[in-house]
Amino acid sequence: MTPTPLSDPGEMPAEAQAELDQLFRAGGMGDLLGLRLLDWGSGHSRFLLEPSPEIANIARSVHGGALYALADSAFEVACNSYGRICVALDVTVHHASAAPLDEPVTAEAVEVSRSARIASYRITATGAGGDVRAWCLATAYRTSRWHLGADRWPQAWRDAH
Amino acid sequence: MTPTPLSDPGEMPAEAQAELDQLFRAGGMGDLLGLRLLDWGSGHSRFLLEPSPEIANIARSVHGGALYALADSAFEVACNSYGRICVALDVTVHHASAAPLDEPVTAEAVEVSRSARIASYRITATGAGGDVRAWCLATAYRTSRWHLGADRWPQAWRDAH
Amino acid sequence: MTPTPLSDPGEMPAEAQAELDQLFRAGGMGDLLGLRLLDWGSGHSRFLLEPSPEIANIARSVHGGALYALADSAFEVACNSYGRICVALDVTVHHASAAPLDEPVTAEAVEVSRSARIASYRITATGAGGDVRAWCLATAYRTSRWHLGADRWPQAWRDAH
Amino acid sequence: MTPTPLSDPGEMPAEAQAELDQLFRAGGMGDLLGLRLLDWGSGHSRFLLEPSPEIANIARSVHGGALYALADSAFEVACNSYGRICVALDVTVHHASAAPLDEPVTAEAVEVSRSARIASYRITATGAGGDVRAWCLATAYRTSRWHLGADRWPQAWRDAH
Repeated sequence: MTPTPLSDPGEMPAEAQAELDQLFRAGGMGDLLGLRLLDWGSGHSRFLLEPSPEIANIARSVHGGALYALADSAFEVACNSYGRICVALDVTVHHASAAPLDEPVTAEAVEVSRSARIASYRITATGAGGDVRAWCLATAYRTSRWHLGADRWPQAWRDAH
Repeated sequence: MTPTPLSDPGEMPAEAQAELDQLFRAGGMGDLLGLRLLDWGSGHSRFLLEPSPEIANIARSVHGGALYALADSAFEVACNSYGRICVALDVTVHHASAAPLDEPVTAEAVEVSRSARIASYRITATGAGGDVRAWCLATAYRTSRWHLGADRWPQAWRDAH
Repeated sequence: MTPTPLSDPGEMPAEAQAELDQLFRAGGMGDLLGLRLLDWGSGHSRFLLEPSPEIANIARSVHGGALYALADSAFEVACNSYGRICVALDVTVHHASAAPLDEPVTAEAVEVSRSARIASYRITATGAGGDVRAWCLATAYRTSRWHLGADRWPQAWRDAH
Repeated sequence: MTPTPLSDPGEMPAEAQAELDQLFRAGGMGDLLGLRLLDWGSGHSRFLLEPSPEIANIARSVHGGALYALADSAFEVACNSYGRICVALDVTVHHASAAPLDEPVTAEAVEVSRSARIASYRITATGAGGDVRAWCLATAYRTSRWHLGADRWPQAWRDAH
């Protein structure tokens, strides 16, 4: 189904990648909640949440909204990881278990499918011992615009991603 | 399908209602993001978001995570509105349109179905002119525990809700 | 946000509407399961399911897959109702209560939001007494192709829908 | 979080397993659509769809409702695989790519999380070459009833599953 690119897209341009990295790490809402980008690459990313007392829920565990923000951040970086500007369409989150306040939570986003206009991601947030706290099915709309401007990305790269 | 309660559940006890109201308004994450509870009752609630620059996304509109937190807060109050402790199971959010930073957003949660253990809610976040920004299908698990302690709620009330 | 159409789109062309109606009523899977299109218009539709013993589940009520097919059919007609070819992206279904085999179920789809490329629908399947059996949040991708061919639809209609 | 069982639950009783297998293979809706159970075990299952012309959509590929029924069948067997009667609560399906009519589709369900009352499953439907056609996040409510009757399952098994 995927059309063969006319030319090899090659590697992501190193300078653009470095600027994208800065962009991904500059999130205002992430700072507010204590989220940290661990690593990212084509179609994936990992984020860390180190809970603070401000994000407790009534039951003294991590607020579901904070777990969602963690997963959503991983989703955002994974779908924007090619440089193409992508926006969230639909996100479904399942809350699997309570996350204790004294334990970090890691969210990993992986790409499950990608077409010209739509891509989907699975995001899993796990506690220190590997217990699943929440997981998501998320879909993004892939616009025709590019981070840093289209001219920063070679044509072969834009055709392939 | 709904069993007839043995006795009329009557009104929610006024004192418990007042304490529940305080509980609902004390949310740490809501303060962080600038959310405000407008009103609530049996199975419904309304919240307001007045956007601040901190919750902007890269495109200079309201971050999707903030819209989610708004909808999630309305959901949380609506499902806990009977006094029974309820927890989020699954939430699906559709992002319908970008929310400008200079416009308040209101989220309304209404109950669509409720059984002994599970209830579902529709939450709609709309801008000043009525445009839908995001909307959700959310389900909650209804525990057998009660806010403020079970003995604060008459037996007929607990049977019916 | 919605651009003002250059000219009034007017009514849907009557002949195209009649052919679309035939198309919508010719569904192979609907016949298999006993689904019937009740009515439809711009952005909405209603379908009826009269359960047969073949679609029972293990508990002798209507199989969840049949309720989904009912809702999905209403969704499909509602999103294709303008003549533009639309395809399902994401569907979330909540199963609210068991549907008895001896009772018809009606599903109604209504449009909640619509942009150039994406639209969202709420579909509610209810039993004879109004009890919600299942309800859905569904999103469609709006292609640039048209049922019966683009030339069957006036330019002003295509611009507006 | 998971309580240590008081005694080793051991293996699933062989006779009960054989009867459960018969139950899982007797689905009326599956026969209607041409679905076949390939294999199953604790918390997982695989189903096959060999498309017939009756399940074509308007675009001459496999109807989204048939892909959903395939995934839903895999989900149903996976969540009922311990013998405990489980019912679908919420299912989100993402349609990733069109499924050609002349190609079989396989759906695999795996358990992502499980607590006393709620379990979640990821179901992935792939074409012959491994392309993802659709994938789901699905949650089930775990009742306190058992297939074939509770007395067919040892106490240690019921405690653990």
